[in-house]
Amino acid sequence: MEGKEEDVRLGANKFSERQPIGTAAQSQDEEKDYTEPPPAPLFEPGELTSWSFYRAGIAEFVATFLFLYITILTVMGVVKETTKCPTVGIQGIAWAFGGMIFALVYCTAGISGGHINPAVTFGLFLARKLSLTRAIFYMVMQCLGAICGAGVVKGFMGKRRYGALNGGANFVAHGYTKGDGLGAEIIGTFVLVYTVFSATDAKRSARDSHVPILAPLPIGFAVFLVHLATIPITGTGINPARSLGAAIIFNKERGWNDHWIFWVGPFIGATLAALYHQVVIRAMPFKSK
Amino acid sequence: MEGKEEDVRLGANKFSERQPIGTAAQSQDEEKDYTEPPPAPLFEPGELTSWSFYRAGIAEFVATFLFLYITILTVMGVVKETTKCPTVGIQGIAWAFGGMIFALVYCTAGISGGHINPAVTFGLFLARKLSLTRAIFYMVMQCLGAICGAGVVKGFMGKRRYGALNGGANFVAHGYTKGDGLGAEIIGTFVLVYTVFSATDAKRSARDSHVPILAPLPIGFAVFLVHLATIPITGTGINPARSLGAAIIFNKERGWNDHWIFWVGPFIGATLAALYHQVVIRAMPFKSK
Amino acid sequence: MEGKEEDVRLGANKFSERQPIGTAAQSQDEEKDYTEPPPAPLFEPGELTSWSFYRAGIAEFVATFLFLYITILTVMGVVKETTKCPTVGIQGIAWAFGGMIFALVYCTAGISGGHINPAVTFGLFLARKLSLTRAIFYMVMQCLGAICGAGVVKGFMGKRRYGALNGGANFVAHGYTKGDGLGAEIIGTFVLVYTVFSATDAKRSARDSHVPILAPLPIGFAVFLVHLATIPITGTGINPARSLGAAIIFNKERGWNDHWIFWVGPFIGATLAALYHQVVIRAMPFKSK
Amino acid sequence: MEGKEEDVRLGANKFSERQPIGTAAQSQDEEKDYTEPPPAPLFEPGELTSWSFYRAGIAEFVATFLFLYITILTVMGVVKETTKCPTVGIQGIAWAFGGMIFALVYCTAGISGGHINPAVTFGLFLARKLSLTRAIFYMVMQCLGAICGAGVVKGFMGKRRYGALNGGANFVAHGYTKGDGLGAEIIGTFVLVYTVFSATDAKRSARDSHVPILAPLPIGFAVFLVHLATIPITGTGINPARSLGAAIIFNKERGWNDHWIFWVGPFIGATLAALYHQVVIRAMPFKSK
Repeated sequence: MEGKEEDVRLGANKFSERQPIGTAAQSQDEEKDYTEPPPAPLFEPGELTSWSFYRAGIAEFVATFLFLYITILTVMGVVKETTKCPTVGIQGIAWAFGGMIFALVYCTAGISGGHINPAVTFGLFLARKLSLTRAIFYMVMQCLGAICGAGVVKGFMGKRRYGALNGGANFVAHGYTKGDGLGAEIIGTFVLVYTVFSATDAKRSARDSHVPILAPLPIGFAVFLVHLATIPITGTGINPARSLGAAIIFNKERGWNDHWIFWVGPFIGATLAALYHQVVIRAMPFKSK
Repeated sequence: MEGKEEDVRLGANKFSERQPIGTAAQSQDEEKDYTEPPPAPLFEPGELTSWSFYRAGIAEFVATFLFLYITILTVMGVVKETTKCPTVGIQGIAWAFGGMIFALVYCTAGISGGHINPAVTFGLFLARKLSLTRAIFYMVMQCLGAICGAGVVKGFMGKRRYGALNGGANFVAHGYTKGDGLGAEIIGTFVLVYTVFSATDAKRSARDSHVPILAPLPIGFAVFLVHLATIPITGTGINPARSLGAAIIFNKERGWNDHWIFWVGPFIGATLAALYHQVVIRAMPFKSK
Repeated sequence: MEGKEEDVRLGANKFSERQPIGTAAQSQDEEKDYTEPPPAPLFEPGELTSWSFYRAGIAEFVATFLFLYITILTVMGVVKETTKCPTVGIQGIAWAFGGMIFALVYCTAGISGGHINPAVTFGLFLARKLSLTRAIFYMVMQCLGAICGAGVVKGFMGKRRYGALNGGANFVAHGYTKGDGLGAEIIGTFVLVYTVFSATDAKRSARDSHVPILAPLPIGFAVFLVHLATIPITGTGINPARSLGAAIIFNKERGWNDHWIFWVGPFIGATLAALYHQVVIRAMPFKSK
Repeated sequence: MEGKEEDVRLGANKFSERQPIGTAAQSQDEEKDYTEPPPAPLFEPGELTSWSFYRAGIAEFVATFLFLYITILTVMGVVKETTKCPTVGIQGIAWAFGGMIFALVYCTAGISGGHINPAVTFGLFLARKLSLTRAIFYMVMQCLGAICGAGVVKGFMGKRRYGALNGGANFVAHGYTKGDGLGAEIIGTFVLVYTVFSATDAKRSARDSHVPILAPLPIGFAVFLVHLATIPITGTGINPARSLGAAIIFNKERGWNDHWIFWVGPFIGATLAALYHQVVIRAMPFKSK
């Protein structure tokens, strides 16, 4: 959509660039019809004095608060029944996580970028899409929001019931090793962060009209799909703030024992996704600016 | 999409504004590349003589009628079975509420704004997006539509069966306090009205191409998600017209006892969302026109 | 999107027209920023000699064939199990109907208009959006496609099993009167055809960017939602071709007794939706061309 | 969206072309307002020396790896429970397959065309949308990715459990003949490949604004819908790489006996879809360039 002026420049090559689905772009020497934004500086002092910086942090706090509130409350509603038929079911839990990410990315994308997840912030930081200051500020606000969100759910459910139902905390399920859990978190986060990178790729935004418009939907679906697959293994973290918030409010040994998996796994997955996107897909190291 | 002329003006700053997801807008001094519409007057006498004003009210009536008809009929289909497996399940109920809001906002957005909910009308009125006359007219039409919609369902189900199945009325479930129910209504309505504000924000419409196109989808999803989480607590209102329609047609003490929660909660939630959006996100009070 | 040139003409009124959601269009004297297409003639002799006319009929045949094949096969998969848990469930059936309409409208909209339903064809004919010749041709092809689609499912399931499982035929369920069934078909078809009219409204296409792009999605959702609500009452027709195809292939008394409901109901619903849209929403009778 | 310049040329015919849904394009002599891309050569030697060719292959490998990983893991999570209620259910499996195709087509469309399925590659090759070299390279990478994806799932589940649960392999279910299974695969793949062709049709991209933007969504839905209908018959293949990957990692007689069905069926279905689209819808053979 935005690529109007560029399209004129594309000339005879125009067609193969317009049909992204089903037909690969076959041009060998790809014309530069887009501009790569410069990498964000590690420290951008001006940020700290701007209102939009703090507003972005507040937006991340509120979004992660609402994310944990809705999702953990949905989990509670399912697990408190002995039979799952009169509940929204495990599939309903997966919809809650994925759907909230869809709605919240849609709402906060223009304010803070709509990360709502330290692993996403970390992956985008590795790609130098935001400064270190901003990345750390976002992660802190996400974790605080997650703790408050889970806390409100505990308030609704009552301490005893919340504890008995495991409080939506993540841990490796019986029948799987810690290695299985770590692997599931790594690949799951890879799926999510790879989708985020695909949706924010400057090159493709310039060409494929459907990329920026649909963006929040595949990101939400990525979260939904990973939950469908890995709820039986770890309950699905792929979001350290979500795992931390639930663990702190649950605060029992069972919640803390495996907790490292839900930081190490997502950060490794995000790193792999950033590497895959920047090195393989965009071939950044092999290009001169 | 609309932001074409503005994009030209953006100049060198162009890129960071184009990638709303994953990358925060980092410009400090935000150029005014959009126009804030003037606040709606409290009373606009001209409205009362225009056909489009009454047409909008009729559209709100019809939409809320269809909303209650489809959703309460879905609820009846689920609750009348002793085991939920041979029904669409609780998750199906959540889809009915969220999906109808998606379809009806899509259909009526261009006629009346597509509120279908007094809490949404109230929130938008607080932000001065419509006149007081119009707000009151909408709310009355929404409540009348809801009563008729629930009435048709009662006609289909028969009086005895409808009463025995609680008629889709909202009340606080056993095991939760009235405070829990009120809190759930407040936060749930906040999620919905915050999404509505995000979708109608003039500033972001000007920049983010995906915002106005997808708009009805995240609004519908917000309703779906709140239902996933709070059906076990209150049956989920977040829409005083929906609660009133079901309560009037059900008309038993159990439906009326908690009824105030489904007006007070949504109106507080809508007020908080309007404040959050106008004060924190848009920083309206600190700006000169 | 297309309305670019028109927007320039809108002048100062521009903003309120741009924010369809949440804000009602408040202009009293609506400027004519769009062109109403002339009504289609009853008979257009040229059509009968054009390839695109027959191609459209073939596309309607193939689409209705695939619609019945996927949906009736899904119904068979659910009803053949005594307990619904190891199936996609009733909700899965609703998704099959709604999802197929979404995908098929997307695929055939540019070829035939993507009706796939005699009630939709009838409603659009009443609004003079296609000729009588074309309307009758479409309905015949839709019914033939539906018969073939249901026939293939019977081939897969075997005659005895297909018959025992009621063959996906529509009839009024035990506990509801024929009047309930007729009412459910009328309102259900109203929801569908009203959504179709909203998506194809020339006036709003000119202004609301999100209307034409999302169009197939709310149409599919309308079908999904009506199924969620009325499967327990009639199995949900709202499509006479679907009901006829299943009834002919099932061909038992039970399938034929109530069959008139699934023609009379949808045609009344489509008529009401056409009236509501043309008279109330568009105020056609009160306008001079 | 792209059709802006063309619209100007359309002149008086403008309106009927703008309303794809509900109204058939009624023009007899269709003006050429789009350009057909030339057919891809069988062998394009230049491809083999370009990085974008190998990058596309890697993207297909990674996408098919993630596709099998998420979907087979979801299948395992459902089948390992004796009662399906405490799982995401069969409907959840259908969402996993369809949702992954949606997300992965969105992510890889701009890199490789987003096939993730040898049947799609075969259909597009028949329509001469990519070279033979590229088609074979894609199919090999898809199969390798699928094998690795299923292998990781086996690693998580353990060899014994994976084998006992049939490893997500496709075979014709008890109660259906091999002919039923073959037919189900043919029609199912037809639905998918027909949707892919509709989404990539150059002619319609030029006119219908909603076609290219939504594209990945109906393609994903097509996969979801076919799974809803045919999981009870064959477990649903419609993707030879998916069937091969599961069969190789499962590697028991039961998985291999019917394996030919999941290559022959999809390839026949893809051929029929290519014929239908090119001959009936586009009338290619009857047109001079």
